[in-house]
Amino acid sequence: MARSVAAHREAVQELLSGLGSPHSTEVVPLMAALGRVLAVDVVAPLSLPPFANSQMDGFAVRAADLVFNSDNDGGAELAVVDPVPAGAAPAKLLPGSAAPIMTGAMMPEGADAVVPIEQAVPDVFPLPGVAATVRLPATDPGTFVRDAGSDISAGTVALRSGTTLGPGQLGLLAALGLGSVEVRTPLRVLLVPTGDEVVEPGEALPPGKIYDSNGTLLEAAMAQAGLHVTRAGVSGDDPSALLDLLRSHTGGVDLVVSTGGVSKGAYEVVRQAMDSQPVEFVSVAMQPGGPQGIGTFDDVPFLGFPGNPVSCLVSFEMFLRPALTALLGSPAARITLRAPLAEHLTSPAGKHQVRRGTVLPDGTVRLEGGPGSHLIHALANSNALVQVPEDVTELEAGAEVEVWML
Amino acid sequence: MARSVAAHREAVQELLSGLGSPHSTEVVPLMAALGRVLAVDVVAPLSLPPFANSQMDGFAVRAADLVFNSDNDGGAELAVVDPVPAGAAPAKLLPGSAAPIMTGAMMPEGADAVVPIEQAVPDVFPLPGVAATVRLPATDPGTFVRDAGSDISAGTVALRSGTTLGPGQLGLLAALGLGSVEVRTPLRVLLVPTGDEVVEPGEALPPGKIYDSNGTLLEAAMAQAGLHVTRAGVSGDDPSALLDLLRSHTGGVDLVVSTGGVSKGAYEVVRQAMDSQPVEFVSVAMQPGGPQGIGTFDDVPFLGFPGNPVSCLVSFEMFLRPALTALLGSPAARITLRAPLAEHLTSPAGKHQVRRGTVLPDGTVRLEGGPGSHLIHALANSNALVQVPEDVTELEAGAEVEVWML
Repeated sequence: MARSVAAHREAVQELLSGLGSPHSTEVVPLMAALGRVLAVDVVAPLSLPPFANSQMDGFAVRAADLVFNSDNDGGAELAVVDPVPAGAAPAKLLPGSAAPIMTGAMMPEGADAVVPIEQAVPDVFPLPGVAATVRLPATDPGTFVRDAGSDISAGTVALRSGTTLGPGQLGLLAALGLGSVEVRTPLRVLLVPTGDEVVEPGEALPPGKIYDSNGTLLEAAMAQAGLHVTRAGVSGDDPSALLDLLRSHTGGVDLVVSTGGVSKGAYEVVRQAMDSQPVEFVSVAMQPGGPQGIGTFDDVPFLGFPGNPVSCLVSFEMFLRPALTALLGSPAARITLRAPLAEHLTSPAGKHQVRRGTVLPDGTVRLEGGPGSHLIHALANSNALVQVPEDVTELEAGAEVEVWML
Repeated sequence: MARSVAAHREAVQELLSGLGSPHSTEVVPLMAALGRVLAVDVVAPLSLPPFANSQMDGFAVRAADLVFNSDNDGGAELAVVDPVPAGAAPAKLLPGSAAPIMTGAMMPEGADAVVPIEQAVPDVFPLPGVAATVRLPATDPGTFVRDAGSDISAGTVALRSGTTLGPGQLGLLAALGLGSVEVRTPLRVLLVPTGDEVVEPGEALPPGKIYDSNGTLLEAAMAQAGLHVTRAGVSGDDPSALLDLLRSHTGGVDLVVSTGGVSKGAYEVVRQAMDSQPVEFVSVAMQPGGPQGIGTFDDVPFLGFPGNPVSCLVSFEMFLRPALTALLGSPAARITLRAPLAEHLTSPAGKHQVRRGTVLPDGTVRLEGGPGSHLIHALANSNALVQVPEDVTELEAGAEVEVWML
């Protein structure tokens, strides 16, 4: 009886649960942290903005000076004092006066509102040092003032541990004055493609052989997900050679992933090599990527993905990547949307089918290639995985499907 | 009269049109090309699959041996010959025989179909070297055979110049046997935040000053978009010092971007410094990010973004990034979707508002913070930009908006 996709994902998450914590960490400069994962909660060492400041170019005033009363029409003529450029620490604003103030400049003590220059009469700043007055309209306290701490208050958590650091997050850390940040050391994965038919790219290709694409495909996908990948090279179909290769690289590794050799053929090197290890070989109700190995190799978590490249990527995206997201908070979950199919599809009964597709500018999703797990050119033309549930055997063009953006 | 967002985007694209081609390029190993941009069309040096191979573990046969006729019930008893493991170059299959074949193994000459082991009687492979026969059902030619070139044919274009290289694309190049790839040398951007109020992170913060976040925010965003960024350090409000700083770094630079000093206040260092350069300062009907500088500085394309961090990021996402996408084919356009607002919003008349938001698991989009351009903590909590068109002043919760995923 085949295992459901959800059940196998849970099993992978259970296998990897020990990787959830604690993490080893390192402190790196901000730009070196791009795409890395925050290892600690960052508490804001200062408020943002650090001080009340003006949202406009205009005049800083005491709103009480501009209140309606029987003597005015809702404004007042105020004496213009020294201007406040951004970056300056201004003098206290005395009653009855108005200070020219620039966007972002610190509000003078006593001032509680800003009148934009466009509302002033005259609507230009007087020359500094020349005595002048300005007529300003009635204005509520707080108008065009950004209060200290209105974005974040000192002492509160600015970013949570586990956050992936992109431009916005790094920009926030910079705004908080932090020049470096503590990030998680990436998980270390040992990646071993297997199979007598597999040759490294760049070498000559004898008849019957193919170039290894699984190593590159998975290393790239894992690197984008924040994993540090060691590739041990391609292993042939000799189980003892595979064991030797694995053992020469497993020191300090958090996870071992192999590709190929997990099916029911006559030469299944991963099955044979894992014979004396607590590794289970299961059939998942998924197309492609049905045969899966899961367990531990010399006490290190082990996943055996199938041998075809599309199966490998689908295994990574459906099982390993979501398990990491659930356990570590990173990588971020794939963006998921619902889109109408641009064409008809069929799917085997009782299997969750994962097709490759392109979400088109009109919002529909076109399938790239057929269901075959060897279609890596079609995969390279895709920007999405199309999810066809286990109980669906046919969908017409226009039917809505769940799509995971790659 | 303010310029529309579309008109300014076109102006930026026009300014940068010279960067479209030709590109300087470099050849790098596959994994070093992750996230880089292909500089040439890659023509497939071989077909994928390189040879016809089996899609199943089973028996390679001549379908003609299994044709219905008066003597059988649609199948036949065939002599089992030597097995074909994956990676082997098999002998020709003689009429009346069946070769055990593994998934991915090369089809023997003469064989034109595969019968899965599950359909064989008996449904196990005989031991190699032991004479045996197997009963197999009638099978159409081509069944469970992956034809040579069914994914891509040798001599056709596998990937187009301008493609961003992710896992799928690098996996394809590996499958084609390519160990390295010619990618574009990144465009070089000189990035200069300005303002007397701005202090580098890590330094002490005097009253009235703020830490520079624009440099980090934009460098990170530009790096993710494939640009090589040089930061010249923060410039104060002295125009001649800014000119000196720019001139000491512009050698070999494709684009200069400044932040701040483009508004209509009394101290606008970028406006002042560009006084003798063909740089225009325009008002775009957008909130935030209205004031924009555009032109050339010493004949190098120049963009002057406003000084608040959210305005900077919005300027980058709305103008520079799409212009690069249009001109260079990379970075890939932001994923755009339509989502219902989780809450009410208002937007100024006549301005395209760009709000920051989070697309929630239920598919709705929540706004993060108000419209203020200083709210970098709110930006750091966002995963999307919410686009509110120029003619919209109010939207109720549940109204559909266009959302750009960050």
